[in-house]
Amino acid sequence: MQPVNLSDYEALAKARLDRGALDYYQGGSDDEVTLRANRTAFERLRLRPRVLVDVSACDLRTNVLGIPVTMPILVAPTAAHALAHPDAECATAQAAGAAGTLMVVSSSATRSLEDVARAASGPLWFQLYIRRLRHAEALVVRAQAAGYRALVLTVDTPRLGNRERDIRNNFEGFPTPNYDSDGKEEPFMGDTLTWDILDWLRSLTSVPILLKGILTAEDALLAVERGVAGIIVSNHGGRQLDGAVPSIEALPEVIAAVDGRCEVYLDGGVRRGTDVLKALALGARAVLIGRPILWGLAVDGAAGARRVLEILRAELEKAMMLAGRPTLASIDRTLVQPVGTAPER
Amino acid sequence: MQPVNLSDYEALAKARLDRGALDYYQGGSDDEVTLRANRTAFERLRLRPRVLVDVSACDLRTNVLGIPVTMPILVAPTAAHALAHPDAECATAQAAGAAGTLMVVSSSATRSLEDVARAASGPLWFQLYIRRLRHAEALVVRAQAAGYRALVLTVDTPRLGNRERDIRNNFEGFPTPNYDSDGKEEPFMGDTLTWDILDWLRSLTSVPILLKGILTAEDALLAVERGVAGIIVSNHGGRQLDGAVPSIEALPEVIAAVDGRCEVYLDGGVRRGTDVLKALALGARAVLIGRPILWGLAVDGAAGARRVLEILRAELEKAMMLAGRPTLASIDRTLVQPVGTAPER
Amino acid sequence: MQPVNLSDYEALAKARLDRGALDYYQGGSDDEVTLRANRTAFERLRLRPRVLVDVSACDLRTNVLGIPVTMPILVAPTAAHALAHPDAECATAQAAGAAGTLMVVSSSATRSLEDVARAASGPLWFQLYIRRLRHAEALVVRAQAAGYRALVLTVDTPRLGNRERDIRNNFEGFPTPNYDSDGKEEPFMGDTLTWDILDWLRSLTSVPILLKGILTAEDALLAVERGVAGIIVSNHGGRQLDGAVPSIEALPEVIAAVDGRCEVYLDGGVRRGTDVLKALALGARAVLIGRPILWGLAVDGAAGARRVLEILRAELEKAMMLAGRPTLASIDRTLVQPVGTAPER
Amino acid sequence: MQPVNLSDYEALAKARLDRGALDYYQGGSDDEVTLRANRTAFERLRLRPRVLVDVSACDLRTNVLGIPVTMPILVAPTAAHALAHPDAECATAQAAGAAGTLMVVSSSATRSLEDVARAASGPLWFQLYIRRLRHAEALVVRAQAAGYRALVLTVDTPRLGNRERDIRNNFEGFPTPNYDSDGKEEPFMGDTLTWDILDWLRSLTSVPILLKGILTAEDALLAVERGVAGIIVSNHGGRQLDGAVPSIEALPEVIAAVDGRCEVYLDGGVRRGTDVLKALALGARAVLIGRPILWGLAVDGAAGARRVLEILRAELEKAMMLAGRPTLASIDRTLVQPVGTAPER
Repeated sequence: MQPVNLSDYEALAKARLDRGALDYYQGGSDDEVTLRANRTAFERLRLRPRVLVDVSACDLRTNVLGIPVTMPILVAPTAAHALAHPDAECATAQAAGAAGTLMVVSSSATRSLEDVARAASGPLWFQLYIRRLRHAEALVVRAQAAGYRALVLTVDTPRLGNRERDIRNNFEGFPTPNYDSDGKEEPFMGDTLTWDILDWLRSLTSVPILLKGILTAEDALLAVERGVAGIIVSNHGGRQLDGAVPSIEALPEVIAAVDGRCEVYLDGGVRRGTDVLKALALGARAVLIGRPILWGLAVDGAAGARRVLEILRAELEKAMMLAGRPTLASIDRTLVQPVGTAPER
Repeated sequence: MQPVNLSDYEALAKARLDRGALDYYQGGSDDEVTLRANRTAFERLRLRPRVLVDVSACDLRTNVLGIPVTMPILVAPTAAHALAHPDAECATAQAAGAAGTLMVVSSSATRSLEDVARAASGPLWFQLYIRRLRHAEALVVRAQAAGYRALVLTVDTPRLGNRERDIRNNFEGFPTPNYDSDGKEEPFMGDTLTWDILDWLRSLTSVPILLKGILTAEDALLAVERGVAGIIVSNHGGRQLDGAVPSIEALPEVIAAVDGRCEVYLDGGVRRGTDVLKALALGARAVLIGRPILWGLAVDGAAGARRVLEILRAELEKAMMLAGRPTLASIDRTLVQPVGTAPER
Repeated sequence: MQPVNLSDYEALAKARLDRGALDYYQGGSDDEVTLRANRTAFERLRLRPRVLVDVSACDLRTNVLGIPVTMPILVAPTAAHALAHPDAECATAQAAGAAGTLMVVSSSATRSLEDVARAASGPLWFQLYIRRLRHAEALVVRAQAAGYRALVLTVDTPRLGNRERDIRNNFEGFPTPNYDSDGKEEPFMGDTLTWDILDWLRSLTSVPILLKGILTAEDALLAVERGVAGIIVSNHGGRQLDGAVPSIEALPEVIAAVDGRCEVYLDGGVRRGTDVLKALALGARAVLIGRPILWGLAVDGAAGARRVLEILRAELEKAMMLAGRPTLASIDRTLVQPVGTAPER
Repeated sequence: MQPVNLSDYEALAKARLDRGALDYYQGGSDDEVTLRANRTAFERLRLRPRVLVDVSACDLRTNVLGIPVTMPILVAPTAAHALAHPDAECATAQAAGAAGTLMVVSSSATRSLEDVARAASGPLWFQLYIRRLRHAEALVVRAQAAGYRALVLTVDTPRLGNRERDIRNNFEGFPTPNYDSDGKEEPFMGDTLTWDILDWLRSLTSVPILLKGILTAEDALLAVERGVAGIIVSNHGGRQLDGAVPSIEALPEVIAAVDGRCEVYLDGGVRRGTDVLKALALGARAVLIGRPILWGLAVDGAAGARRVLEILRAELEKAMMLAGRPTLASIDRTLVQPVGTAPER
């Protein structure tokens, strides 16, 4: 099968990955209610396309915290790319750069942050779990030194979610060179983290800080008050608190609370160009995709991951044209409407 | 099986068409969300029948832009009838005329517009894609000369929708004599079209102009301001922007915006006489049916296409009688009610 | 299988009836949307039981147009009982009488109305289709002479619904001695009937008149203004206009419009004692059951039909006790609540 | 299979129990609409997790009517534990005590209330059906003497629900030593019970009294006025009135009516730590679990029942941490949001 969309890549990857890796990538927590809801929530939003707009100069370029990227689609931080391909995160970084976009490198990567930075041709942000302060400090310093342009602090993991597929598989984890000499993942210990951690982080580094894993207006307001550069609306791909609100449903309240005072991103369930379009219409500056990158990587290494990005870019471009919104600025709330409601106008 | 409804014709046609043609006719774009929603949206509307009305003189006749037709059911423009039957659009035109209704002939027909006009016994409108102005101008002049009574400009196709069935099938397209000497379809290039195209069109022809593919009140207002004769509320049968609002859900806002200043039609998902009734109740002057005509054509040529129209006419007539609405004028908003809501009265 | 509920009787009957009869009984019109919705609409209503009420003296007795019955569950008019059992409507009448309730005898019965009256031990109403006035006049006179205590004029059948199962089966119908010498059913010709028919009917007979097949407040108001004794909210078991509102959803607006000025009944989808309870809570004086009587008849003649009634009576009695509503008077709107809404209080 | 959640225990128990016992435990009444709705209603509630809260000192301890327990998860009264394991309710009492929580012992237990009390290491409440006053009086006196700390009067069983699985299985019941010398269950005769029974009960005993089976604000108000110590919002696990509102949907109106004047508990459909979290967020002091305890008991006796409790405790603890609510006091209404609605804030 020649893959024509992201689902095809998932189907192909399933055939290539062993059960433990597949389930680790694919699974969510508990009953996977949020995992499924991330998808169905997009389907409940309907698009209201405009016509007779000149869309010949469709332009997807944007910038994220001032960094130019060729499209509002970034690579989300995901762990353990080595389970998908021997070139691991280095391949992913090459793919992101080749696609003209930014990668958020996970601190649970299976290559050192320096190796990934060396392999990369595009901009990188560094995702951080804070377990022990001393260790985190070292990572922050290393990341800044290696040229990472922002820190993405994940705030939804005081504990690892209850991922029963991994338990049933006796999934053994994977080496995470950024953390331990023994190479075993053990990053989720940040159960004492509070908002004060932001001051501490800022004392260590001058790069901008984003928070990943915010789902409420209340926390968005606190984040803005603390001066974060960006928020990633996320439920960790349905892998942490099961039953948590789907990302795309949480986005409007976060956007309203932030009111333009920082950039807002979204991950969770983005599989089609029209999903990107919906997130942008509801106010996201860009989206991040996680699992589909892994499917591409598993199928064809850097080329596969890049192809995933290019498919999504092409879908977004076509969707923008078909929606009569040739520029990102022209994408607004009037483009979307929940099922069974009247449009907002 | 003796077909008794439009679904039966679809089932029979599936057995007769090769995979490429079947998928081309049947498929939608991306995940076919809108394709399915076009149908389910009709089911969410409930009918409120009235009783003890004399329905013995049930009358389905109406006129469309002043042209009398025997029922408010027209033939939608669809491409490539030759894939269904060797007599192609000529057979369809005979069927429409025999059924006393109007056919909108696609500019992507597999017979020349003149051939179709010669074969037709009923009124015709000509559907237009504008790719190159010079070519479109020629088509408009030819259509008027051949007796087409209106132009239907399709406005939802600055690009072809992402139809993955065709991609997977390596569907090769079909000869479109109206366009190219080499006969390959390549009509979807109108990505620079704006509302100004209407002035240009009107400079070429005196026939009325309709816009097909409008789904929002905003565009309906612009269309009215530009003086169009009619609007066809349509999402291109779920073949263009996936996730676009179902036609029947978009209809009320278009009707409200137009406020009687032009005629409003609908296509998308009409498969039963009660679907027609619902569209009329929400304000459509008539509906157009696309795929079912192709199923009839595939099963039995002109006779099959005509039988499809006659089944739908009989269903509509019975539905009008059972609803206590024997005339088109008696069909109003009080006839429909969304699931779980109180009726509008 | 020893049947314990009405669904069991349906399952058993399916094994005993030939395809034509089964489909005639079981089927609805078109896509059977309303047939299914009649059931699912009941499931969308939730019950709010009260506790610590003395329910030891649970009393189901009521009267319908002044006629005492032992429960608010009547036998709906259905055609062609001879297809289910050789004793036909005579057996059904015996069952109804033995169960202490009233039967509405269909004018499309397969026994003459006089034969049914002779076999009956309980009160009877006569359901009337008006095809030719002379014939209807004769039926009305005969019914009154035979002791029928009310006329139930069916008003939703200007034409027979589009029942595709019967078409596919070439279902040949059945002898209807009340109508024709040749015994073929042909009753649905009342397409000229208007509200004036009520004056004509009243000129023929002194028995009360009910209208069966009303689904809107508008028609309920007209019925009240014309002085009918009762209204049966019904969509003909999903056999006439497909897509028509489920009976139980139409009931509240009819009750509100009637405002106590006549009695209101309901049929359509009643299969459980809790369904009866919901209909009573929304204002019905009693419900009528159709198909389940036929299943009982097919399984075990008069004894089976009676058992169906006794099962439903026992279910209703238990439901009333479990709901803390031991009397019919104690059943009110606060007992029901649509899914996902706050209760009315 | 090593069970990792409560569903696993159910699957394992199914393989160990005979059909009669399995169906008795698992089944609901009529069509089991409420049984299923108890689960789906939880899924319709979404969680709004907060972040950057110090959750390292997560504390699940609470007290119920002044009795300290290690978590807000109690053992619901269920009958006939002997069908699951020879140690019956004695094993369950050991499990509850070992897990640091409270068991509500059913009066339909298959061990005498004194035997269960002797086996128990933790606090017990006694669930009471009142059939004959003399007998109930004896039970109340015995329960108080045996050290039971509260009486839970079940108020939703004037009759046994219509449990068709048991009827089809000819389920013979089980010995209930608390009631009869002949050991057959026959407890549901309280159809004359009214609110006055509370005065009579209080004349017999000084222990606090809770009412189990309340689903409406109206009854909650009456209970508060009568001075009950607690209310258990319950539909008897879907085993009494089918169609009754799911417990979790009834909870908000009960909480609002009670307005802090007594403690409010919930049972029905709790299978995950996140379900407990949702019930607490909507105002429950604690939840009770019924069937899962029986699955644990069937699989592994006291150890299995305890493991069920420990799994649920661990899930709740993790859910509280992931929701940013490390204490029971921090769990409030802002944590939950119905699907498709805006959050309450």
